[in-house]
Amino acid sequence: MEYEEPKFFHVMQYAIDADRDVIDMVSGNPDWEPPSALREALASYAELPSAEFQYPPSQGIRELRESIAARRNVDVDRIIVTNGTGEANYLGMARALTRGAGSEALLMDPVYPYYPGKTELLGGEPTLVPTERDGGLNVDAVREAAGEETALIVLNTPNNPTGAIYDIEKIREVVEIAEAVDALVVVDEVYDHFDLAGEFESALGLNSERVVVTSGFSKSMAITGFRVGYAILPDAHVGPAKTRHMLVNVAGSRPAQYAVSHALEATEPSYYAEAREQLVDRIDAFTDALDAAGAEYTRPDGAFYVLARFDGYPGTMANVKRLIDEAGVAGMPGETFGTAREDWIRFALVTPRSLEAAERLVEYFSEG
Amino acid sequence: MEYEEPKFFHVMQYAIDADRDVIDMVSGNPDWEPPSALREALASYAELPSAEFQYPPSQGIRELRESIAARRNVDVDRIIVTNGTGEANYLGMARALTRGAGSEALLMDPVYPYYPGKTELLGGEPTLVPTERDGGLNVDAVREAAGEETALIVLNTPNNPTGAIYDIEKIREVVEIAEAVDALVVVDEVYDHFDLAGEFESALGLNSERVVVTSGFSKSMAITGFRVGYAILPDAHVGPAKTRHMLVNVAGSRPAQYAVSHALEATEPSYYAEAREQLVDRIDAFTDALDAAGAEYTRPDGAFYVLARFDGYPGTMANVKRLIDEAGVAGMPGETFGTAREDWIRFALVTPRSLEAAERLVEYFSEG
Repeated sequence: MEYEEPKFFHVMQYAIDADRDVIDMVSGNPDWEPPSALREALASYAELPSAEFQYPPSQGIRELRESIAARRNVDVDRIIVTNGTGEANYLGMARALTRGAGSEALLMDPVYPYYPGKTELLGGEPTLVPTERDGGLNVDAVREAAGEETALIVLNTPNNPTGAIYDIEKIREVVEIAEAVDALVVVDEVYDHFDLAGEFESALGLNSERVVVTSGFSKSMAITGFRVGYAILPDAHVGPAKTRHMLVNVAGSRPAQYAVSHALEATEPSYYAEAREQLVDRIDAFTDALDAAGAEYTRPDGAFYVLARFDGYPGTMANVKRLIDEAGVAGMPGETFGTAREDWIRFALVTPRSLEAAERLVEYFSEG
Repeated sequence: MEYEEPKFFHVMQYAIDADRDVIDMVSGNPDWEPPSALREALASYAELPSAEFQYPPSQGIRELRESIAARRNVDVDRIIVTNGTGEANYLGMARALTRGAGSEALLMDPVYPYYPGKTELLGGEPTLVPTERDGGLNVDAVREAAGEETALIVLNTPNNPTGAIYDIEKIREVVEIAEAVDALVVVDEVYDHFDLAGEFESALGLNSERVVVTSGFSKSMAITGFRVGYAILPDAHVGPAKTRHMLVNVAGSRPAQYAVSHALEATEPSYYAEAREQLVDRIDAFTDALDAAGAEYTRPDGAFYVLARFDGYPGTMANVKRLIDEAGVAGMPGETFGTAREDWIRFALVTPRSLEAAERLVEYFSEG
């Protein structure tokens, strides 16, 4: 079994070790405040009787599952609370790839590198499927790629790294393709609260027995380190996924689940709206600067990221390290996201220094 | 792929749903207080800047790994902090079973049911190996069972469910057998602080390239719900295990790691000693009552559990449910721990009501 470690931590470490000030635009860590109710709930939890410090139910604490069920309008029995969206994706992908329905996973290119990594970990074979130039779903390409061996199709909307939001009708067509070849579709919606264009529709609305939806609170509550996510599985698949969750992790971490559960109930929509507005302002400023630098870029409809292409400076690991050393800006190499954006570099706009970073890029590329 | 869900949650739910008062002796949840420093650290964490709420290093926060390294006298680079000892065992077992060195796992009988479950999840085949009547390692039986296909041997000391502490010289012999057949030995030492007989020696002392040691803080700090454990791997195996950890979970939960890290530094040996003393007192009282009930039992040298055998009342799931309904005491069926203790029932002594439970058992079995 061979599988590669995603390179995020590698680039972040290179930036930390650099002998100069570097603006981190690598990690997808929100830089804003978590909901105040989250801090309060965690402090309250610390004083609870010790019985509350023991194993939560394996599939997650009841209150949190019920809150998720109400918000997503699904039966609570379909929900497994996981150690972040990462584990939720692992469970959904594992279910698809271990049913005896084939070993091929169709992944959209550019691809979030954890997907091919997880596919290979699970003994599956990733096939990259082209997307549109703007990052949108290319249904014909999915149809062409799908075959008897296809057991899994992974979608991510709003998309990392392109910022595309997938049209729900196109997702419906992909689900029909999945039905035809006996595949499951895992739809990672972890950026669902960062629908900047007002166009996002959850795949849950399709009410399909083929669709696993995953999400989490890492991004929406600015707590990537808490590791609270969830998978919503079709009835036929929730049992095996629960068993795998139990055998791998027993359960998720209870203090984090408790804090998230309270914050989910107490937090007003304005909290999420403010984060979106701040992000839009940053994107405006950053893309203005990219214009000034003569770079090509995609303006994201959702999520946190801007992909940029600088002439004669492809998105290799070597160039990204050079950019860290010479310009003091750390991005992620496009070549780590499959084949479609090898010329591009991904910048995460979750730093208050994003405008300063843009100015450094303008200066650096104007010199050249 | 077939694998069975361990039955702990199933029996606990049956006890909760029972139409009477039931004393829970199923779960391994300590009923005493966590270290006070743990509560304090968690409350402090809730007030930290939000940057501290973001992804910890995938292998765990540095301070915690350094504390573990110092206490276990190993290089910090060998340590991965995991989502409880459960994930640590999963990582160690996965490494053994996915090296291309075979698919057989030797598990000691009676067996903690997560081990065969994880083995099957990983595509391996469990083989149960007899132990001595007192639960001790039977090296000849391990030697007889080991062969070309053997890739993994799992040991658990102090042992759940027997309470046996394995002689370090016997572990050394098992490691030699593992070397001869190219297997890894995963030694689960999660009950290391519950060495009631003063006989425990860690397998780390063997300094073997074949040994993965796992442990955690669930039991020692009375926080099974926090999910903080660790694996200590030989240099050659730590890389692939880190990658698997990253691909499955990204990282563990940071508030829990932070709280444990501070508690580990601040907690005096007397905290652990008091928990042990309380457990010994309970075992004395419980086994006295078992004597009065005419039951056979093993007095544990370590861990939390007493196995008891009542004449004409084998340890089936049906009998355990009957005991819940008719006597108001919930144990775990011996038949869920492999084949060696099918006549027995396991009682966890982590309830202040253990003496009351013993009295109920005396009364119930005296009637019959």
